[in-house]
Amino acid sequence: MTGQRSDARRNYAHILAVAEAEVAAQGAQASLEQIARTAGVGSATVRRHFPTRKALLEAVFKQRVHALCDRAHTLCGEHDSRSALVRWLRELLDYSLAARGLADVLSYQPLQDEVTQDSCAGVIGAAGASLLRKAIDDQAVRADITVDDLLTLIVGIALATENYTAPAIPADRAFRLAVAGLGATGT
Amino acid sequence: MTGQRSDARRNYAHILAVAEAEVAAQGAQASLEQIARTAGVGSATVRRHFPTRKALLEAVFKQRVHALCDRAHTLCGEHDSRSALVRWLRELLDYSLAARGLADVLSYQPLQDEVTQDSCAGVIGAAGASLLRKAIDDQAVRADITVDDLLTLIVGIALATENYTAPAIPADRAFRLAVAGLGATGT
Repeated sequence: MTGQRSDARRNYAHILAVAEAEVAAQGAQASLEQIARTAGVGSATVRRHFPTRKALLEAVFKQRVHALCDRAHTLCGEHDSRSALVRWLRELLDYSLAARGLADVLSYQPLQDEVTQDSCAGVIGAAGASLLRKAIDDQAVRADITVDDLLTLIVGIALATENYTAPAIPADRAFRLAVAGLGATGT
Repeated sequence: MTGQRSDARRNYAHILAVAEAEVAAQGAQASLEQIARTAGVGSATVRRHFPTRKALLEAVFKQRVHALCDRAHTLCGEHDSRSALVRWLRELLDYSLAARGLADVLSYQPLQDEVTQDSCAGVIGAAGASLLRKAIDDQAVRADITVDDLLTLIVGIALATENYTAPAIPADRAFRLAVAGLGATGT
């Protein structure tokens, strides 16, 4: 029984490592069949561990997502809460540009009946919400902004530029525009 | 010869009509094989008319794109150039939310060596540029904004919300946020 369990664990870790490499190379559309072939297991085994593409991507990005949470905790201690929030959003955007597929994972609407706190979007959302709350309390950003609004923009900028050969420049420009707004006064 | 040409034209129009229905139902990932099957032609025939997925989507969205251009011309005559620009961007976003796949087409970086004026992104870009230029001349928006920055945000918001069951609400919130910015003063 124990032997079977540790076999399963090794199997899972091996498939996950292969999936990480494949997603890094191919993005969110990485082929489950190719992952199975490279890992030397059947497609059914891959699907048992990762029933959906989303489940696979969630597992692949777990570590990166936790690093972003640690950054949010650190930045929460900074005096200038607006620039702490902007810096963290910028880091989320940089991560999303570097890790093809992360923006796809974050673009799925959290399902009401799913425990979402543990999902990538749930974890990222909670981290961003703490920074946003502090900035709103300091009256450093508009009070009607939600963390979902911010994530939609960041994920969107990453998705809109991912076909570019050098996404960093257009993504940076769009990010600054979203932070500053169109300018002049809203009418 | 003439008979062959009009056969080819009918064939093209038929495949395009099938492609429109398929893209409306499935979005940008619509299967070329399925389009060929429904149209009752071989995959090779579909690929001869539309060598790439992008070429197929360009053809599908041509009409919608021209309607947006007409709107830009009309709005260019309005007195308040900032609100004319914002209204047009809003209509582009609404179109993109309604027409699954349009945002995908617009997310491809125009290739330098391609004549892009005729592509969806080229046509939309030119229409938006005329509205933006007027707003900048009127000092109604910041002068460092480019039409590409604006399109990146609109396309991004559409892509980030397309997996939602009701994308209109989160898309509208993100749009307003991008237009207004985070608020307080940039530091």
